[in-house]
Amino acid sequence: MNKIAVFTSGGDSPGMNACIRAVVRSAIYNGIEVYGIRRGFNGMINGDIFRMESSSVSNIIQRGGTILKSARSKEFTTKEGRQKAYDNLKAHNIDGLVAIGGDGTFTGANIFYQEFGVPTIGAPGTIDNDLYGTDYTIGYDTAVNTAINAIDKIRDTADSHERVFFIEVMGRDSGYIAIPCAVGGGAEIVMIPETKTSIKNVVETLQTGWSRSKTSFVVVIAEGDEEGTAVEIAAKVQKEIPRMDARVTILGHVQRGGSPSAADRMLASQLGIACVDGLLQGRACEMAGIVNSQLVYTPFIDTITKEKAINPSFSQMISILSV
Amino acid sequence: MNKIAVFTSGGDSPGMNACIRAVVRSAIYNGIEVYGIRRGFNGMINGDIFRMESSSVSNIIQRGGTILKSARSKEFTTKEGRQKAYDNLKAHNIDGLVAIGGDGTFTGANIFYQEFGVPTIGAPGTIDNDLYGTDYTIGYDTAVNTAINAIDKIRDTADSHERVFFIEVMGRDSGYIAIPCAVGGGAEIVMIPETKTSIKNVVETLQTGWSRSKTSFVVVIAEGDEEGTAVEIAAKVQKEIPRMDARVTILGHVQRGGSPSAADRMLASQLGIACVDGLLQGRACEMAGIVNSQLVYTPFIDTITKEKAINPSFSQMISILSV
Amino acid sequence: MNKIAVFTSGGDSPGMNACIRAVVRSAIYNGIEVYGIRRGFNGMINGDIFRMESSSVSNIIQRGGTILKSARSKEFTTKEGRQKAYDNLKAHNIDGLVAIGGDGTFTGANIFYQEFGVPTIGAPGTIDNDLYGTDYTIGYDTAVNTAINAIDKIRDTADSHERVFFIEVMGRDSGYIAIPCAVGGGAEIVMIPETKTSIKNVVETLQTGWSRSKTSFVVVIAEGDEEGTAVEIAAKVQKEIPRMDARVTILGHVQRGGSPSAADRMLASQLGIACVDGLLQGRACEMAGIVNSQLVYTPFIDTITKEKAINPSFSQMISILSV
Amino acid sequence: MNKIAVFTSGGDSPGMNACIRAVVRSAIYNGIEVYGIRRGFNGMINGDIFRMESSSVSNIIQRGGTILKSARSKEFTTKEGRQKAYDNLKAHNIDGLVAIGGDGTFTGANIFYQEFGVPTIGAPGTIDNDLYGTDYTIGYDTAVNTAINAIDKIRDTADSHERVFFIEVMGRDSGYIAIPCAVGGGAEIVMIPETKTSIKNVVETLQTGWSRSKTSFVVVIAEGDEEGTAVEIAAKVQKEIPRMDARVTILGHVQRGGSPSAADRMLASQLGIACVDGLLQGRACEMAGIVNSQLVYTPFIDTITKEKAINPSFSQMISILSV
Repeated sequence: MNKIAVFTSGGDSPGMNACIRAVVRSAIYNGIEVYGIRRGFNGMINGDIFRMESSSVSNIIQRGGTILKSARSKEFTTKEGRQKAYDNLKAHNIDGLVAIGGDGTFTGANIFYQEFGVPTIGAPGTIDNDLYGTDYTIGYDTAVNTAINAIDKIRDTADSHERVFFIEVMGRDSGYIAIPCAVGGGAEIVMIPETKTSIKNVVETLQTGWSRSKTSFVVVIAEGDEEGTAVEIAAKVQKEIPRMDARVTILGHVQRGGSPSAADRMLASQLGIACVDGLLQGRACEMAGIVNSQLVYTPFIDTITKEKAINPSFSQMISILSV
Repeated sequence: MNKIAVFTSGGDSPGMNACIRAVVRSAIYNGIEVYGIRRGFNGMINGDIFRMESSSVSNIIQRGGTILKSARSKEFTTKEGRQKAYDNLKAHNIDGLVAIGGDGTFTGANIFYQEFGVPTIGAPGTIDNDLYGTDYTIGYDTAVNTAINAIDKIRDTADSHERVFFIEVMGRDSGYIAIPCAVGGGAEIVMIPETKTSIKNVVETLQTGWSRSKTSFVVVIAEGDEEGTAVEIAAKVQKEIPRMDARVTILGHVQRGGSPSAADRMLASQLGIACVDGLLQGRACEMAGIVNSQLVYTPFIDTITKEKAINPSFSQMISILSV
Repeated sequence: MNKIAVFTSGGDSPGMNACIRAVVRSAIYNGIEVYGIRRGFNGMINGDIFRMESSSVSNIIQRGGTILKSARSKEFTTKEGRQKAYDNLKAHNIDGLVAIGGDGTFTGANIFYQEFGVPTIGAPGTIDNDLYGTDYTIGYDTAVNTAINAIDKIRDTADSHERVFFIEVMGRDSGYIAIPCAVGGGAEIVMIPETKTSIKNVVETLQTGWSRSKTSFVVVIAEGDEEGTAVEIAAKVQKEIPRMDARVTILGHVQRGGSPSAADRMLASQLGIACVDGLLQGRACEMAGIVNSQLVYTPFIDTITKEKAINPSFSQMISILSV
Repeated sequence: MNKIAVFTSGGDSPGMNACIRAVVRSAIYNGIEVYGIRRGFNGMINGDIFRMESSSVSNIIQRGGTILKSARSKEFTTKEGRQKAYDNLKAHNIDGLVAIGGDGTFTGANIFYQEFGVPTIGAPGTIDNDLYGTDYTIGYDTAVNTAINAIDKIRDTADSHERVFFIEVMGRDSGYIAIPCAVGGGAEIVMIPETKTSIKNVVETLQTGWSRSKTSFVVVIAEGDEEGTAVEIAAKVQKEIPRMDARVTILGHVQRGGSPSAADRMLASQLGIACVDGLLQGRACEMAGIVNSQLVYTPFIDTITKEKAINPSFSQMISILSV
C-alpha cells in the first residue's frame, strides 16, 4: 500500500474533519501518500481528487462539517459510474480507500471492492449512532450535546410560562439521540421508535403531573416515532387536552453542525488512525469502531445488517427521574 | 416610597433575572422593602406576593427565564381584576411597582395608574427590540447571539452539502433580530417586514450566486415577513427552481432562553437600578432605557405608540457582504 | 431501608446536581424518604440535614456546582466528630447514605460503616477520572470539554501570532484530563505524570516543527507532571530556546464549573439511580460505576487502592497527529 | 483608488476576520482590486502580499484570530523598513491601505503617510476598548463574554465551597473589560486602574459580607490595577485574613480567541465597509468608529492621544448590586 485516498459521504457529522486529519497525518506518519476526494463517490467519478499534506489539515480538528464536502451519488449505483471512479483512482495509483460515512457509504464500498478489488476501511460518521460495530459513531456525542443545550434554553421559557413543549430531535429510525436528550434535558416524556408510547400515555402523564402541581413539561420525540412528527403528536394531545398551552420545536439541521465535542474529537482521531492501520494490515470492507473501549474491525455487511439494540433500561429512567 | 414590588410580564427574555436582581438589591441599598409578584398581573390579582431579600436573588444573574415567572392576564383587562390587584398591593402597603416586560405590560400599568394611582416604572424586557425609548431591549443581544450560533452550525452543514437553507428567526413585526443574524451569520439574503424582498429577487440572487459558483446559501427570514413563513417562502422558491436542494429551520423558542450575554446582564443591571431610582424621584408610567449610552425615561404611551425605525443601511450591508 | 440521605463531598464537579436529582427522585419512586446533608461530613456533624421532595431538585440537572455544597471535614477524621454525625443521622432515623465524591469521601464512609454500621453507597464525583471501578467519573467529560474549548480559543491567537503556548490543565496525579485535551486541542506535545517527557524532547519537537515550517505550538501539561508546573516548564524551555515567544495559561478552577455535558448528565443520572438501588439491595461501602457500558459495584477499598491505568496508546496518538 | 490592501496588526482580537471579509467584499462591490498582507507591517516589508477574491473570505466570519496573521514589527520603526514596505506596495500599484489594529498600528500608519503619501484608514481591532473615537472596539464584546462565561463556571465552584476567588482579566491600563465582567459576573469587588481600591477596602468588604452570611466572593481585577496582579493582591488580602480560603485565576489569552459575538460581527462588518468608503472619499489617517450609533471618522492622532473615560457610575453599580 503506497497511496490511499480519504472521502466523506452521506449526511455530514461533527468530527468528520478530525477524522480526515487523523487519516492524513497517520498516512504521512506511516510513509504513505494520501489524497482527498471531494463530494464522496461523486468526486471519485468526476476525478475531484487532490494530494493532501500535513498542512492541508491544520486547524480543522475543531470545525464542524467536512472540508471534503459530502454528497449522495446516484451515478455510483451504476456500473458505469463505478468504472469511471475506478479509472480515476487507477490514474492516481491509489490502492486503498478510507470512507467516513454510514451504511449507504459502506454498501457502495462493498460492491466496489467486489468489482474492482480496491479495499476500503470505513469510519462511522453519522450523528444517528445506529451502526452496529461501534458503541458510538462520530458526531453522535456532539449532536446530543447540541440538542440538550437547545432543550435547556427551551426549558428556561417553559418554566417561566408553564407550557408543554414538544421537541423533535433527529435519529432516523432509532431513539439513540432522543434518549439522552430526554434524560439530560430533564424531560417528562420520551417517544422513540423502539418502544410504543401511546397518546393516551402522554395525556395521562401530563394530567398526573398537573395534579402533582408540576407546571411545565418537556416531551422529547425521535423523528422516527410511530405516532408521527412532533407537530402531529402535539395536535393529537391538544385534541385530548384543549386547555394545554403547547409549543412545538423541531431542532433540525442545527444538530448536524457545530464544533465537535471532546469525545467526538478523540473518537474521530482514534478511528482515523485505525482506518489507515487497517489498510496497512491488509483489511478490506471493514469498519473501525470502539466497543467496550477496545478497537474492533467489523465487516461492512455486519454493520449494515445487524441491529444495535438500545439499552431498554434507559426508557425507564425517564419515568423515575420525572417522578 | 417605603415598599415596592417587582414583576415580569409578557414573553420572557434572557436578562429578566439580572434585572430582578438589580431591582431587589437597589431597593435594599436605598433602604426600601421589596416584594416579588409571581406570574405578572395574575399574581397581583391572586395575591401571589412575597418579601424578597438580597439572598432571594443570589446566583440568578446568569440564568435565563424569570424566577418570578411570567404570564399574560385576561383578568387584569377587567376593572374587577384590577381592583383585586390594587387591594392586594394595598394589603402589603406597596406604593410603587417595577414592571419588566413589553408594550402590553406598559399599557396595563398605565390604566392601573390612572385608576388607582400606583406608579409603575418599566424596564424593556423582550427579545424583539421593538420598543421606542431604548436602543436595546433586555434579551435582544442574547437572542441574536443564540440565533447566530445556530446559523453557524447550519452553515457547517450547508457548506458540506451545497444546499439552500431557509432559516426563520423571531421578531414579531420587525426585522431587528433578522438583520444582525443575516449579517453575522454570513447570509446571502435577508427578508424582513420593513422592506419588500420579492420571491423574484430571491430567485435571482440564488441564480447569480450559482453562476459565480457559490455553492451554499443561507436565507434569513423574519417571522413577520410579508411573503410568509420560512416554510411558505421555501415552497415558493422551490416552485421556481425545482432542482434546488432546500432545507427549512425554524429556530423557535430556543431564542427566548439561555444564559444572558454580557451586554444583556449589563443593560438589565443598569435598568433595574434606574427603575428604583425613577420611583424614588417620583416618576410614574415611564420606561427606563439607554439611548446613545445615556439613561433616559420615556412615557409608557410613547414606548407603545412611537415607532423605532431600523437603520436602512443595514439591509444594503447584506448585498455588499455576500458579493 | 426507609430513610436515606445524600451528600456531596470533596472537590465539586459538574453533574453532581444531576446525580443528587437522580438519588432524590429514585428514592421517592421507590417509596423511601430522602434527606439532603449540606457541606458533606461537616453538615452531618452539625446537623445541617433537611427533607427533600421531588421539587427540591427541579431545574438543577443543567447547573454546575452542587446545591448541597461541598467541603472537606477535619472533624470527621476524629471519633468524636463521627459520633456526632451518627447521632444526627439517628435523630432523623436515616439508615442509609449516598455519598457523591472521591477517594477521601469513600475512606471516611468506610470507617464510619465499621464503627456505626450505617451503609453508604458512593457515586464517583470528581473531574479527575482517577477512580478505579468506573470508566468515567461524573464531571470528567465536562471538564475536558471546557478545557478544549479554552484551548480552541488560545489556538486562534497562537495561529495569529506564531507562538508557543504552555497550557496547564487539572488532573491531580494523572494525565486523564491532559490526554484528550491534547488530542482534541490539536496539541503538538503532551506532558503527563504517567510517562516521562524530558525538556530535551520538548525542545527537539519544537525545533523539528519549525524546520518543517509549523508556526504555532500548543503544549498541554498535566498539573502533576514531574517536570514541574507550566510556568516552570516554559521557563526551562525558554532557557534552551531564547528566541521562543512563549505564553503560559493555567486554566484552573474554570474546569470545575459549568453546565454538565450530555454524557455527564446521563452518567450522573444512571449512577444516582444505581446508588439507591444498591442500598435497597443491602449493599454497603461500594461505589456504583459504569465499566464497558455495564453497571458495576466496586468495594470502596478497591476504588481507593487499585490503580486505573491510562491507555498507553493515547500518548503515541499525539506524535502521529502532530506529524 | 484602484487597488487597496488590508492587514491586521498588533494583538489579535475576535472579529478581525469578519472585518477583513467586509473590506474585501466591499472593495469588490465597489470595483476595486484588493490584496491581503500577512503579518502586518512585516509582510509589507517582506512582500508577503497576495490578491484576494470574494471566495478568499468565505466561511471566516465566525472564526477567531486573523487569517492574515498579526505581528509587531521592529523593522517598520526604521526608515529603511518603511522604504521597503513602500516599494512593495508600489510594485503592486496599491494606493490605499486598511489597517485593523490599535494605537501602535495607527502611529506607524501616520508616519508612513507623512513620508510616502499612502493613505490608511483604520478599524479599531483590540479587545481592550481603550481607543478614543469609537464606543466599542472589535473584539471587546466577545472578550467580555468569554471572561463572564469563565467567571460563571468559577462561581459554580465558589458557591459550592465558600471561597474567595481573585480573577484577573485583561485590559492593559483600563478597566473597560473588568467592569462588565464584575457586573455581569456578579462580583462583589472590582479593582481597576481608573479608581483606587485599597487592600483595606477589600478586607472590609469581605468581612462585612461574612458578617451578613455571604458565603462566597468573586473579586475581579483588571491586569493594570495599581495594587498589583491578582496573585499579589490575593497574597496581600490573605495576610490580613489568614483564615480566608482564596483561589487565583488568570484568564489570560483565552480572552483573545473564540468565535466573535453577534455584536462584534456586526461592528466589524460595518467598520470594514466604512474603511473602504473612507478611502474612496479621499480620507487618510483616520479611524472608522461608531459613536452613539453613528459612523464617524476620527484622526489617528486623536485616537492615540485623547482619552476615553470610563463611565464613573459603573464602579458604584458593583456596590449596589452586591448589597
